[in-house]
This record gives sequence, structure tokens and C-alpha cells, in this order.
Amino acid sequence: MSDDGAVSSERQAVMETAVAAKAASAVLRRMSRETKDDALRGIAASLRDQADTIAKVNAVDVQRAANNGTDAAIIDRLTLDSQRIEAIAAAVEEVIDLPDPIGDVVRGYTLPNGLQVRQIRVPLGVVGMIYEARPNVTVDAAVLCLKSGNSALLRGSSSARDTNAELVRVMREALQDTPIPLDAICLVPGSTHESVDHLMTARGLVDVVIPRGGGALIERVVQGATVPVIETGVGNCHVYVDAHADLDMALSIILNAKTQRVSVCNAAETVLVHREIANVFLPRLTNALNEAGVTVHGDRVFQQADAAVVPATDLDWATEYYSLDVAAGVVDSLEAATQHIRKWSTGHTEAIVSDSAQAIADFIAAVDSAAIMVNASTRFTDGGEFGFGAEIGISTQKLHARGPMGLAELTSTTFIVTGEGHVRP
Amino acid sequence: MSDDGAVSSERQAVMETAVAAKAASAVLRRMSRETKDDALRGIAASLRDQADTIAKVNAVDVQRAANNGTDAAIIDRLTLDSQRIEAIAAAVEEVIDLPDPIGDVVRGYTLPNGLQVRQIRVPLGVVGMIYEARPNVTVDAAVLCLKSGNSALLRGSSSARDTNAELVRVMREALQDTPIPLDAICLVPGSTHESVDHLMTARGLVDVVIPRGGGALIERVVQGATVPVIETGVGNCHVYVDAHADLDMALSIILNAKTQRVSVCNAAETVLVHREIANVFLPRLTNALNEAGVTVHGDRVFQQADAAVVPATDLDWATEYYSLDVAAGVVDSLEAATQHIRKWSTGHTEAIVSDSAQAIADFIAAVDSAAIMVNASTRFTDGGEFGFGAEIGISTQKLHARGPMGLAELTSTTFIVTGEGHVRP
Repeated sequence: MSDDGAVSSERQAVMETAVAAKAASAVLRRMSRETKDDALRGIAASLRDQADTIAKVNAVDVQRAANNGTDAAIIDRLTLDSQRIEAIAAAVEEVIDLPDPIGDVVRGYTLPNGLQVRQIRVPLGVVGMIYEARPNVTVDAAVLCLKSGNSALLRGSSSARDTNAELVRVMREALQDTPIPLDAICLVPGSTHESVDHLMTARGLVDVVIPRGGGALIERVVQGATVPVIETGVGNCHVYVDAHADLDMALSIILNAKTQRVSVCNAAETVLVHREIANVFLPRLTNALNEAGVTVHGDRVFQQADAAVVPATDLDWATEYYSLDVAAGVVDSLEAATQHIRKWSTGHTEAIVSDSAQAIADFIAAVDSAAIMVNASTRFTDGGEFGFGAEIGISTQKLHARGPMGLAELTSTTFIVTGEGHVRP
Repeated sequence: MSDDGAVSSERQAVMETAVAAKAASAVLRRMSRETKDDALRGIAASLRDQADTIAKVNAVDVQRAANNGTDAAIIDRLTLDSQRIEAIAAAVEEVIDLPDPIGDVVRGYTLPNGLQVRQIRVPLGVVGMIYEARPNVTVDAAVLCLKSGNSALLRGSSSARDTNAELVRVMREALQDTPIPLDAICLVPGSTHESVDHLMTARGLVDVVIPRGGGALIERVVQGATVPVIETGVGNCHVYVDAHADLDMALSIILNAKTQRVSVCNAAETVLVHREIANVFLPRLTNALNEAGVTVHGDRVFQQADAAVVPATDLDWATEYYSLDVAAGVVDSLEAATQHIRKWSTGHTEAIVSDSAQAIADFIAAVDSAAIMVNASTRFTDGGEFGFGAEIGISTQKLHARGPMGLAELTSTTFIVTGEGHVRP
């Protein structure tokens, strides 16, 4: 890939960028909401003004991908036309309307000794984003970090490298007219895989890295990072249909969760059906799934219910298909369902369809995931749907933030304790 | 240390313990507050009943430490007599009175489409504690984990290994009369350093590791862990005396922060004084510190103010003395003070003594630490002092929890979204 000298000079370049981003964050953390919102307005305007140039640079990435024989779906995700650039600019403007979380008082009280304690939100500092595919993440992440007072260190996929560089150039140019340092938005230099390693081991300079992408990327970051990580987005989501369920509702939720958009982390990948209703429900379910073009990978009972069902193996229970495939099994009890889910789930979103308050309570108590949908589609686990206004990702870990992450999840806190000369007795 | 076979069988033993703790956590997370509080009552009673046996086992550890020529102060911290065991039991009873955080609704609202969103507190799952010295941490950590619905995987120092094993035996025995699985409280098996490595790389089994101890231990865990880590307790704390300060108050706060207890993370290690008041304040300060037996490691101005001051080097600015030593310097401005703090602080606690609202606001805006004391001693950064009732440690990282960590900081959250057949349009 590159010799030691190249790696070490690349490491040097990444470190210098991180140092610059950290210095910028010390200034940015003191900026008022007004200043930050003005900067966002400037960024949106610049993106619109320079849409033609951006599209022209993007065409270079797209052409290279085409020359490399890249899949048409991926090329589509990589492509920016004027309509998509307008959508990116409009998304920046939506962030302007969101409240600034910095300075929010999370807790505040007075102690018996008169000390006043306030826990206030402060920026994390420097946020490293490691992401794949869509170049709109470059702008989304940068503006969410800026609004929450954080410097953004951006490392997109090499397939989008020219587009990402151009988007960062446009955003930094817009910062020139503001008191916000340009280095609040930085592209991580270097094109080798090692630049990701340098970023995620820059302890003391980078406060958190957030990987967004496929399972392999996330696993690599989690294993190699010494900087704290927020894991995102891997979703092997389940829908469980209880013995006491409205079967029309169950059918509608399963079809929506599986087919409304297949390539997303909150799509359903496995359906579990209580044995008591299997005779009635399975024929309806498999028919509906077949009609929707879904291949059912089923257990023995599902196979008996419909000839089109293909046999499921353990691999199916573990797989996020991101496609028109679904794993399906019959369970003897709610407990068997939650055991299956605890074994195979990635802890993203699980749904129960049930009319029984007891079953719903038992499901909630037994399942340990970021989100539980009760009589609703798994597709609702989303920052926009939750009313957060914007989303930097969906955390599937338990520390710091779990589920959709908005601006508040890009903050830390500081305790401010005010006395009048108080000392410990 | 041990051959490969021993390491691999030790790894096996640690993994088996982690699997057992994880299975126990699935049961424990469903227990009511009443059940958990009853268990805590049983643990407190058992500790009292078996105080003699515990003290007898402790004597083995103490004797071994003495034979190894261990420092008297460390032997004192290792020693459990009937009075200290009573204090440990009383501390368990204090946890009974604390509210159970599990099930608390952090956010709750209804979306325009009628979906009801509730974000509720749930246990983290399995908490790995890696700690040194005082055996009371074994009980403190276990009962705080139990109250917050988490299984505890305890790895104390080898110097206290017999005592820790006995304390865990007594606590598990008390669980026999409850519905809580014994494996909710586990000692990490193995006596080699590698058992710590196995614990902190047990992804999928252990949800978080919390190192409590010296800087070397914490650095080792942060570098080697693949399980998420909460860093705790390393405190290079500063007191800044502003140009506009009540000098009597400043003196009293500095003496308290430095000398009230020197071996703790929230003791002050560096004093910074604004140049405008140096002429007046430095002679008073150095006299008072000399009288209190504190060695001042000062910059040139401090050296000129008092012959007893020894020259400070960069090492002094970086050092947590944990002793009757203090680094001291004069700064030209508040900005110079906050720059010094940002450069050298470990992000634990910094204090400002000032009458100026502007100076206080500027200090808060510029300093990025877990706690900022305004006209109060750094010694107040403490879960007990903050009214948390108990403390599992003081986080000096920015993710998840920052500052003193109580029961709420031992939880994660789950979004429960309730609909009536809602699907994404």
C-alpha cells in the first residue's frame, strides 16, 4: 500500500489536522447560537451558489467509480445533481431552526451547605466521523457538529474523495466571513486505510469517533480505536407477532418494516410468530410477502405453510439482508421469542404486535435493544421520525447515547459549582 | 509469568464467569426495587454477621503485604477491622435509601402521528470493575451495580485477593435467599495480569469496564480495552486566583484544596495567581503553605517571593503529587491561566477565586473540565458532596458520564415507542 515513510508522513499530516481542529474547537465552544446559525446560513448559501462546481467535481468521482465497474446502486448513492445539492442545502437550513443544546442546564440545585450545583451541556470538542458512500453525510455531519460547538474531522470513503474535498472547501470558504475558525471543519488527509487508524488513535486530540457504514467498517473502528467510539447503525431488527395480536395489523407492520425501504438499518430482517396463531397467520403472511417479492427463509413450520419458503439456517438468523429477503420462524412462547432476539439481535430495534398488556410488558422487560416498537413498524427508529430534527447516526451501543442521536447526543456536560468561599470541613 | 496453556485456561475461566454474569443480568434487570433492596439488606446483615471471619481472612492479605515489605500507608488502606466492616455495611444500607433509577422516564412525548415515545432507563448489563487497594470498593461497586440492575464483574488488586474473595463469598451467600442469581456478583478468576486483559476484551459479554486506581492502571485499560471504558479519577486540579479576588477566601480555599486530604483526586496540585495581586498575595500564600508543611514548587516570581520555594519544571505542572507539594505560578491574565489549565489539566476539577462576574464567565467558557468550582474548594467534586448518595467513581472522560457518577450513570436507556398499527408512509 505505502512504505513506512509514507505512513509516517501521513500520520504526521493527520495529527497536524487534529491539532488544528482541537485549537479551533477551543474557539468554537465559546460561539453564540447567533454566530453559529449565521455560519450555517452562509454554508447553505455557498452550497447553492457553487452547486455547478460541486456537481462537476462529483462527476470525477462518479466517472472513476464507473471505470472501476462499481455497482449501479452505489454509483447512484455517490451522485450529486443540482436537486440533491439543493436538498443538502435545505437540510443545513433545518439545523438552523433547531435549538442550540450548549449551555442547557441538565440538572440544577442548591446543596444544604449553600453550594449551587448546575450541570450544563458543553461541546464534546473534536468529533471524528468515519463514513462510507453518500457525500451528503459530509455536510450533515459538519453542520451538526458546528451547531453543537464541535470541530468535525471528516473521513469519508475514498470513492467520494473529490466530492468530499470540494464540499469541505465550500463550507470552509463560507466560514471565512465568520468568527468561527476554518479548522472547525476539516477533511482528514491521506487516502490510505491507515489514515483511519491515525484518526481513531489520536487520543488527547480527538474526543470521539463515530463510524457510520457497514459492519466491517464499524468492527474495524471498535477493535482498533483508543479514542472513545460511538457504534452506529447495524440493525438486525425483529418483528414478533404474539398469540394475542390483530393479524391485519401484524401483516401491515411486517410488510412496512420489510419492504418500505430495504437498504436501511431499521428495516426488519426476521419475523417470529407465536405457534398459537401460526395455522391462521402463516398462509396469509407468506402470500403477502411473496406478492411483495420477498423471499422467505423459514423454519420447518414456515416451509410447510408455503412451498415458496426456502429453508433458514443459523446464518439467516444472523443476517441483515438489506434486501427483499426475510428470515421467519415460529416460536412456542413469548419467552422463546425474546430468547431468540437476545441471541441474534444487534440491539437496534425490535417490534412486538400484541393486544396483551402483559405480553407487551414482558417483551419490554426481556428485550435489551435501543428501541422497542409496540404495534408499530421498526422503520420509525429514526431521529427525524422521533422529532429530533436531525440525526448524526443511530447508536447501537449502551454508553453515552442509545438509539437515534441528535444534537444533545453530540455534547458532554460540566458541573459548575458556585460557592462563597466554601471549603470541605 | 505463565505458559500459554495457563493463559488460555485462565481466559476460558474469565469468559465462563462473564457468560454467567451476563445470564444473571438478564434476570436481574427484571427485578423490582423491593427485591433489590431486600437483597441489599441481606448483604449488610451478612457482612455484620461474618465480620470476624472477614477480618481473619483480611489478616492473611495484610500479613502477605507486610512480608513483601509493602508501604505502611498501603497496608493501612488494605486493612479491615470490625469498625471498617461496620462502615462498609452501613454504606450498603445507605444505598437502600437511594431511588432506583431503572424505569425512570428520561423523555416522554407524543408525536404528531400519535406515536407515544418514552425513553426509559435500563441497566447497562454487565459492569466490569478493575480497581486497586481498598477492599471496600468490592462491596461498594457490587451493591451500586445490583441496585442499578447490573451484574458486577469485580477485579481487585492481587494484594487484596483473599479479602475480596471472602467479601464476594459473603455477598453471594446473602443472595441465596433472594430471587437474584448469585452470578449477579462475580469475582474475576485468575491472578495474573492477563485476567484484566481478558475482562476488558470480552465484547458482547461485558458492557462497560470502569478502571479505578492510578494513572498506569487507567492508561493500560484505555489502551487495551475493546469493551467501552469509563475513565475515572486522575486529577491534576488547579486553583486560579483572579486579579479581583477576596484574598482571605483565596487563601482558605487553596489551603483546603491542597491540605484537607492530600491523597485524593480532587485535591489541588497547582495554584495560578494573577500578576496584579502577586506582590500582595504571594508572601501571604507561601507563608501559609510553609506553615501547613506544603512544599511549593514555584516559577521565578514565586521563588523571588519566598526563599523556601523550590524551582518548578514542566514536570511539576504535569504532576499529581498526592502529597504535601504544590506547583505554583504567576500568570499575566485570566486567558494565560486558562491556557495553562487546558495544556496541563487532566480535566477533573479547576477552581477560580474571583469577585468578577466577567472573569468567572470567561473562566467557565474557556476551561474544559468535568467540574469548575467558583469560589469553592476543588475538594467538593464528589458524589457524596453533590448529593448523589453514592459514587462508583469520578469520570474524567467526556462520553456517557462526566464528573461524579451515581446510580443513574450506571444505566443506559431504551426508547419504547407505542402505536396502534403505525407504519411509515
